[in-house]
Amino acid sequence: MVKEFEFSIRPLTDDLDEFIWKKINSNTKPVGALGALEDMALKISRIQHTLAPKLNSPVIALFAGDHGIAKSGMVNPYPQEVTSQMVLNFLEGGAAINVLARQVGIEVRVIDSGVNCDFSEQESLIDAKMGKGTNDYRHQKAMDMETAEEAISIGGKIVSKFAQRGTNIVGFGEMGIGNTSSAALIMSALCGIPVSKCVGKGTGADGDFLKQKTETLKEVSRFHGLSSDDSPTKILAAYGGFEIAQTVGGILSAASNKMIILVDGFISSAAFLLASKINPLVSQYAIFTHLSKEQGHRRLLQYLDASPLLNLGMRLGEGTGCAAAYPLLKMSVAFMNEMASFETASVSQKTLE
Amino acid sequence: MVKEFEFSIRPLTDDLDEFIWKKINSNTKPVGALGALEDMALKISRIQHTLAPKLNSPVIALFAGDHGIAKSGMVNPYPQEVTSQMVLNFLEGGAAINVLARQVGIEVRVIDSGVNCDFSEQESLIDAKMGKGTNDYRHQKAMDMETAEEAISIGGKIVSKFAQRGTNIVGFGEMGIGNTSSAALIMSALCGIPVSKCVGKGTGADGDFLKQKTETLKEVSRFHGLSSDDSPTKILAAYGGFEIAQTVGGILSAASNKMIILVDGFISSAAFLLASKINPLVSQYAIFTHLSKEQGHRRLLQYLDASPLLNLGMRLGEGTGCAAAYPLLKMSVAFMNEMASFETASVSQKTLE
Repeated sequence: MVKEFEFSIRPLTDDLDEFIWKKINSNTKPVGALGALEDMALKISRIQHTLAPKLNSPVIALFAGDHGIAKSGMVNPYPQEVTSQMVLNFLEGGAAINVLARQVGIEVRVIDSGVNCDFSEQESLIDAKMGKGTNDYRHQKAMDMETAEEAISIGGKIVSKFAQRGTNIVGFGEMGIGNTSSAALIMSALCGIPVSKCVGKGTGADGDFLKQKTETLKEVSRFHGLSSDDSPTKILAAYGGFEIAQTVGGILSAASNKMIILVDGFISSAAFLLASKINPLVSQYAIFTHLSKEQGHRRLLQYLDASPLLNLGMRLGEGTGCAAAYPLLKMSVAFMNEMASFETASVSQKTLE
Repeated sequence: MVKEFEFSIRPLTDDLDEFIWKKINSNTKPVGALGALEDMALKISRIQHTLAPKLNSPVIALFAGDHGIAKSGMVNPYPQEVTSQMVLNFLEGGAAINVLARQVGIEVRVIDSGVNCDFSEQESLIDAKMGKGTNDYRHQKAMDMETAEEAISIGGKIVSKFAQRGTNIVGFGEMGIGNTSSAALIMSALCGIPVSKCVGKGTGADGDFLKQKTETLKEVSRFHGLSSDDSPTKILAAYGGFEIAQTVGGILSAASNKMIILVDGFISSAAFLLASKINPLVSQYAIFTHLSKEQGHRRLLQYLDASPLLNLGMRLGEGTGCAAAYPLLKMSVAFMNEMASFETASVSQKTLE
């Protein structure tokens, strides 16, 4: 079991809500006119327990790991090597997440959770390798329970270090050829939804290939026979990957450090699902940044009762949804702090209520 | 009639499309994985006829004007004075649009299209006053045809000046107590949709007040008896306001200057509707930034066959939707220019097609 003391998450209070709304509604705009930006201002103010919220040193934690199944090519049209190639691309700054994060002022930190590659000592790569990829879950558990627990713990420590450095908002991105399959299996087991409704194209599994992916995952699901009666850690151990396990810990740690959690796409949301089964309080700290085009994501967000900020047909992972939505958070915090009130700007209010 | 030579808009060509897509698809991501950002990259590249698009000196053109009907208080829960008060608030930098635009690096230019106030000589206010508010359209046309044509021409010149200064992207915001009513009447006449389905809460017309607003506009609609058989300029003259008329010219001018047009909410879209009836080619240059919560907007966007980028329940106008969406455009252009290709980053492509 994940030790609870590791991630002690405090429930948020609503004792400031009245004052937060008063401040929001004193701004020179009709009540409610900024829609989701106002709801987000409330959420962030609650998390930070303040009327003057701030976003400090935002980070995308990009956990990368390989998957045993990916060697078989049964579920992934791109070869496993793409994981390590993309890690190097992240470190060089040439991937989509680098470009998007630069545009909006977010730092990208790449974590080697378990990539099948010996990287040279890269200053900017956080080494948290749990192995050179998980086991192939067609025939055994992706990892044993102890490894899953350790990965959660390590992921948590990484995010705690961000918090110690002053970061109060963290987005969870990922890279791992094959990990839409893990996410689909995790979702299926925890939500009780047939895996065929959770599986999607991933990085381009079309037509016959998608059929092969689906059939493979149905077999895997039958082989393990897990359901929501099983513990989240057991389900995580069965299906992996290391990057998902560390993300689970990262999410729990972020909430325990009172950070704002930005959930990205399908895999990030599957990790969030696991974290929320370990401690439902993580939801109070989470903002769902976008609805991915990956088939299972809409249903997963519905299960989580989550309203994503964006719906742009993106399906890339890496934390790109977090980066795309981040300016909206900045605007949300800025209008709280910077707008003139009806009083200071001498603007008349409604003549009738 | 609006003289065509004033706004000569060239249809975009698709002769670069093949190369634009080749560049987009050479980037290190699965084909299509950036969704709407990719479609936007295509659109912007087409408008600028280049594989290396740029966004230069973005401006929100915020046209402000008063409405004769607003003096009656029949359609507006806020008094008419709020228009001029908000103009001063814009100039002071305390309104929502100022805060949002500052966050994302857009300049806000406020235009006095016809506010019922003698402003002192404000350096930053563009004086294009057509009068101190329109006529009350319950009893007469909001303005005569010549004034409508002149306003279109003046709005066009203002935006042309932005273009001459190097701006290649312009968002259209507005301020004018009562102008959701004008927008609803314009939409109803041009789209052939009953005005009751076009009218909405505006700046807070709830319950009985909304009924009063709706009944008033139904009477106005009957009084003028206009339909899509009438010219857009005639419909504009009937319902106003000056800020809408100048926006129409601004939109036509933006397209003729090959600028990217950012359409904001309900009123901005109604102005776009008028512009598109004058010259349908404006659509090729337009990006619809958000779906407003104002009731008629969804139907209006459907009529325009427009897919808005954001759906955040905002309903403020001022160009706030343009500012909220602008970072997405920046990301779209950035990924075109800055991402590594599969080749340069040595990343393997799909093993099967």
